[in-house]
Amino acid sequence: MINPFTDEYFMKKALQEAEMAFDKDEIPVGAIIVIDNKIIARSHNLTELLNDVTAHAEMQSITAAANFLGGKYLIGCTLYVTLEPCQMCAGALYWSQISKIVYGASDENRGFVKMGTKLHPKTTIVSGILADEAADLMKRFFAQKRK
Amino acid sequence: MINPFTDEYFMKKALQEAEMAFDKDEIPVGAIIVIDNKIIARSHNLTELLNDVTAHAEMQSITAAANFLGGKYLIGCTLYVTLEPCQMCAGALYWSQISKIVYGASDENRGFVKMGTKLHPKTTIVSGILADEAADLMKRFFAQKRK
Repeated sequence: MINPFTDEYFMKKALQEAEMAFDKDEIPVGAIIVIDNKIIARSHNLTELLNDVTAHAEMQSITAAANFLGGKYLIGCTLYVTLEPCQMCAGALYWSQISKIVYGASDENRGFVKMGTKLHPKTTIVSGILADEAADLMKRFFAQKRK
Repeated sequence: MINPFTDEYFMKKALQEAEMAFDKDEIPVGAIIVIDNKIIARSHNLTELLNDVTAHAEMQSITAAANFLGGKYLIGCTLYVTLEPCQMCAGALYWSQISKIVYGASDENRGFVKMGTKLHPKTTIVSGILADEAADLMKRFFAQKRK
C-alpha cells in the first residue's frame, strides 16, 4: 500500500498557508505541526497584521499545537515550515523538544544554520522539501514589493 | 537634581514581576519595557500556566510594547529582564531592533551569550543589574522545587 503521508504531502499544506500569508501582504511563510499523520496546527506569518515581530508562522503553530495537546512539549510532533526557521523560532523549537523539523527553502542570511542557533539534541532535521516552490513564492513577493 | 530613573529603579519593577511568577509556581523571571522613562509593558514567565514554551517574560513584553506603540519595532525602548535572555528571546529582540537590553543574572547554560545568539547591531547591552536579587529568587525557587 502506498503511504500518502509523505513529507511532500504535508509541506504542500504548509505552502497553502504561505500562500494565505502572501494574499495578506505578509512575507509568505507557512507552517503546520503534525502528530501521527494528523495536522494539529496551521499558521502563517502575521507580523504585519499583528504588528508583532514574534508572530512568525512557527511560533503560532508551536503555541497552537501545545494548546491542542494540553502540554508544552511537542515530543512526537513534526513541524513543516516553508522557510528555514530564524533564531527566535529555532530557540522556541529548542524549548519545545519537537521530534522533527522539515523545512523547504534555506534562509542563508537569517536562518538558524547560518546564525548557529542550537536545536534540542533529540530533534531531527530534514531540509529542501519543495524548496523551489517556497523560494519562488518569496521571490514573487519581494519582486511585487519592489514595484 | 537627582535622576530617579536609573537602571536599578526599573530593574526593581522587573523583579516585582519575577516575584509574581514565583508566587504562581513559574520559573521566576520578570520583564518590563520602558520608553522615555515610561513603563509600557510588564510581564512575567507564564510557560506553565499557559502550557506554552513561548510564554517567556520577554516575549510577552515585546508583544505588549508593540501593541502599545502601534508598530512592531522597539526603537528607543529598553527591556529590563531579571535573567539573561535565551536564544528565542534574543532572536525576538533581534527582530524588534530594541535599543537597549538590561539584564540581571546571567544564565550560563542557556543564555544567549553562551548560545551565541546574535542581537541587532544597534542594540546595546548592560548586564549584572541587581543580579544577586534575581539569582537569589531563582535559587529559592529551585530549592523549593527539590523539596
